[in-house]
Amino acid sequence: MKINDALLVAEVTEQFERYERALMADDLAEMDALFHDAPTTVRYGVGEVLYGMAEIREFRKGRGGSPQRRLGRVAISVFGSDLATTNAEFFREGTDRRGRQSQTWVRFPDGWKIVAAHVSMEGQTS
Amino acid sequence: MKINDALLVAEVTEQFERYERALMADDLAEMDALFHDAPTTVRYGVGEVLYGMAEIREFRKGRGGSPQRRLGRVAISVFGSDLATTNAEFFREGTDRRGRQSQTWVRFPDGWKIVAAHVSMEGQTS
Repeated sequence: MKINDALLVAEVTEQFERYERALMADDLAEMDALFHDAPTTVRYGVGEVLYGMAEIREFRKGRGGSPQRRLGRVAISVFGSDLATTNAEFFREGTDRRGRQSQTWVRFPDGWKIVAAHVSMEGQTS
Repeated sequence: MKINDALLVAEVTEQFERYERALMADDLAEMDALFHDAPTTVRYGVGEVLYGMAEIREFRKGRGGSPQRRLGRVAISVFGSDLATTNAEFFREGTDRRGRQSQTWVRFPDGWKIVAAHVSMEGQTS
């Protein structure tokens, strides 16, 4: 299995950045387009657990947008031709506490989609 | 792409449970065997961010074991033949705060391995 094919890393990076822009702009349609539209899709957020796209959409509609943030270290890896992981640190405005966002991406016929995501703020204990 | 082939879901579930047993027993060799031995492997823990297996091993050696916990809802999905996600809620002894563990698994020639993991405690805000 080839790991980190340069062309695919570039593709996934582009989609990762597209998602970040959509999140900051609270562009629900764009965020929706980047998540796999299926009951299997999971999103663990800082303060919620969501199973399936119906729950994820409902949460986003009621959220009123994400806090603004800047990214820290970002690690993107592609395994074979259809799977990628993006792991990113972030810092929200007004706090120096570190946030972490992990996404698992799968390449479907209609493009790279997030099948699972986990967002959290770093805590005091492990 | 076939999603959730029953045989593969069973395989991944077995490995997921194997990891949980190893974590509870602080069996470092067994946990090590279930993580992909590469600099690309990422583990975001409740209170730490770790990049590459060297950092992950070092953390585990110094940790003295994970707090004991019981699992809550577990969602396992397999995409195609070589990629899986496991998303699990957990509750540590002495608290009813919800924990969440996300793992991304890839099937290599020597078996299913975790290429990325993210563990956090649910917070108050999203």
